[in-house]
Amino acid sequence: MTNSTHSHARLEAIRYSRGQLQILDQLRLPNSLEYIDVRSAEEGADVIKTMKVRGAPAIAVTAALSLAVEAEVIAKKADGLKDCIEAIESRLTILGDSRPTAVNLFEAIGQIRQIIQSAQALLPDNKQSCEILCTRIISYAEGMLEKDINDNRAIGSFGADLFKNANEKSLNILTHCNTGSLATVGYGTALGVIRALHERGQLSHAYATETRPYNQGARLTAFELVFERIPSTLITDSMASFLMKQQKIDAVVVGADRVVANGDTANKIGTYQLAIAAHYHKVPFFVAAPTTSIDLEKASGEDIHIELRPAHELTHIFGQRLAAEGIGVWNPSFDVTPAALISGIITEHGVIHKTGESRTFNLVKALRGFSEQ
Amino acid sequence: MTNSTHSHARLEAIRYSRGQLQILDQLRLPNSLEYIDVRSAEEGADVIKTMKVRGAPAIAVTAALSLAVEAEVIAKKADGLKDCIEAIESRLTILGDSRPTAVNLFEAIGQIRQIIQSAQALLPDNKQSCEILCTRIISYAEGMLEKDINDNRAIGSFGADLFKNANEKSLNILTHCNTGSLATVGYGTALGVIRALHERGQLSHAYATETRPYNQGARLTAFELVFERIPSTLITDSMASFLMKQQKIDAVVVGADRVVANGDTANKIGTYQLAIAAHYHKVPFFVAAPTTSIDLEKASGEDIHIELRPAHELTHIFGQRLAAEGIGVWNPSFDVTPAALISGIITEHGVIHKTGESRTFNLVKALRGFSEQ
Repeated sequence: MTNSTHSHARLEAIRYSRGQLQILDQLRLPNSLEYIDVRSAEEGADVIKTMKVRGAPAIAVTAALSLAVEAEVIAKKADGLKDCIEAIESRLTILGDSRPTAVNLFEAIGQIRQIIQSAQALLPDNKQSCEILCTRIISYAEGMLEKDINDNRAIGSFGADLFKNANEKSLNILTHCNTGSLATVGYGTALGVIRALHERGQLSHAYATETRPYNQGARLTAFELVFERIPSTLITDSMASFLMKQQKIDAVVVGADRVVANGDTANKIGTYQLAIAAHYHKVPFFVAAPTTSIDLEKASGEDIHIELRPAHELTHIFGQRLAAEGIGVWNPSFDVTPAALISGIITEHGVIHKTGESRTFNLVKALRGFSEQ
Repeated sequence: MTNSTHSHARLEAIRYSRGQLQILDQLRLPNSLEYIDVRSAEEGADVIKTMKVRGAPAIAVTAALSLAVEAEVIAKKADGLKDCIEAIESRLTILGDSRPTAVNLFEAIGQIRQIIQSAQALLPDNKQSCEILCTRIISYAEGMLEKDINDNRAIGSFGADLFKNANEKSLNILTHCNTGSLATVGYGTALGVIRALHERGQLSHAYATETRPYNQGARLTAFELVFERIPSTLITDSMASFLMKQQKIDAVVVGADRVVANGDTANKIGTYQLAIAAHYHKVPFFVAAPTTSIDLEKASGEDIHIELRPAHELTHIFGQRLAAEGIGVWNPSFDVTPAALISGIITEHGVIHKTGESRTFNLVKALRGFSEQ
């Protein structure tokens, strides 16, 4: 069963109520808005594997919720705890095989295994124990969903606070790639800041780069902006500088794949060039990311490994050859923006700034400060 | 009749010998290399109108040569000079209707009209006068062809001289859009500099941006580089900064649509952003253009009108929708790079530099200097 509608006020990548899970089929965007029912871990693994759902948080939450939906059935069928755990473990294996590099997914699977181990250690082998275990897993999955949305709303709110003295409908914000409802469970990080400013009536216009080579800006961000009726304009990545020169741009806000201890930020290729353009035009440049994206084990951007992606992403589009045959291709999936070019890092606990004359951030100290709040 | 070959050492947009003209069908690039016979002004207007040939110099030369090819036939058929001029004028009308905004084309037509007027004033109305007139037109058209190639070779040579102390196979050069054999009659401007460095054995690698939204870099520059076996790599426009950070890039060389009196340069959208990236990484940034592209009537870049192109160039590719429906689009065809970001302007007479501490060029003085040489 699929639903197709444009009437919802809020774009949701994941729709969930206890026992029911639907995910938005992102492969059909922007041409059609279709939700797919996910009734089991196997169906969950399938929508992840086929990339109908994307974005690290969304993948992990989809996996956990697909298990949660099936857990009610498992609880009814299983005779005892041993049966129950065997059934759940088999589902975790299926989910773990869906996307080999999804870190958040493996974190979630690890957490569920801890819930299983604690049940195994403390509960007797009967039907009621299975029900207790399944309820715990359901609660954990629902908690993930809630936390992701809440964190994003907090990021949006703290980000919007940066501009709290701005006049009504006065702000022009530029963003890159897709960091919205379609990359997270809902609301988004950098796009969450734009949403919050729009909700507060302060946004004049959002600008989105198309984000070559995978066009997430043109396909997904543009879709979200149109869907929510946010006044918005698409540009090519190469136009950002000229836009900043021709129009008032109040800030650039982007997401992050990873922020390291000094604030250097790995994000979608093109972010670094956008940061240089912002720097040249004296436009503030913000990174919006949950603290789970902060990696304190890496000291600086030099420690970040750059993944190189296949050539065909540049040479072909819609399966057709665009570029001349035989040309070499360099296709790094992301780049590193040095902390010196970043004005602030917007997290769910608040905005982190550089102190004094420092060209880098002290994120160890900043996170300690948050945990002491 | 069409020819298809990959064995030529040199890629030519236009092939000409007296009485014979062929143009490379650029609509079929990069998938196939096909030359089309052009036997008359009408066929010349047709290949221009259908954009099988593109680039202001190439369009003008194609128009003039298509008339030159037909002029031999006209000279044979016409009884007198009056007949002859009528026939030529009818061809000029057809050519003038082919592309309404091609400045070089109208300059060429104007020059041919001057040749006609001088014949009209000085020669008797007989068959021999027609032959003389036709021969003059043929010479003029052949002169255009020769001048364009010679100017480009001179640009390539002066540009390469900038790096004359470089070691063998040591230089990495980045370029934008297509400024090669396919945009000019042959050899190219910015790509001519890369060709010259390659011929001199000093080039290590050429990098080409894909040049959104029309992908001239991916389609045409990549094709030329592969064709001439120049070691080369395609990147997205957004990767230029990260490339400069990761790899040694010795210079960026781009073409120009128009250079105004202070050196501010209008060129393909994305050029300005590339210049900022080069500035940030302390990479020299050169503009390569014939002096015919210098417009001394405009004092600075602020006087340049920016053409906005249709939205579908961004939202669609290969006729398929790429971007979400309903999104606004900003699509300026070019941007203006301030003289402050330009290291030098490479012309067919030599390289123009800024003097002393000046942030702009004095092109009035520079051109005067060239004419006094």
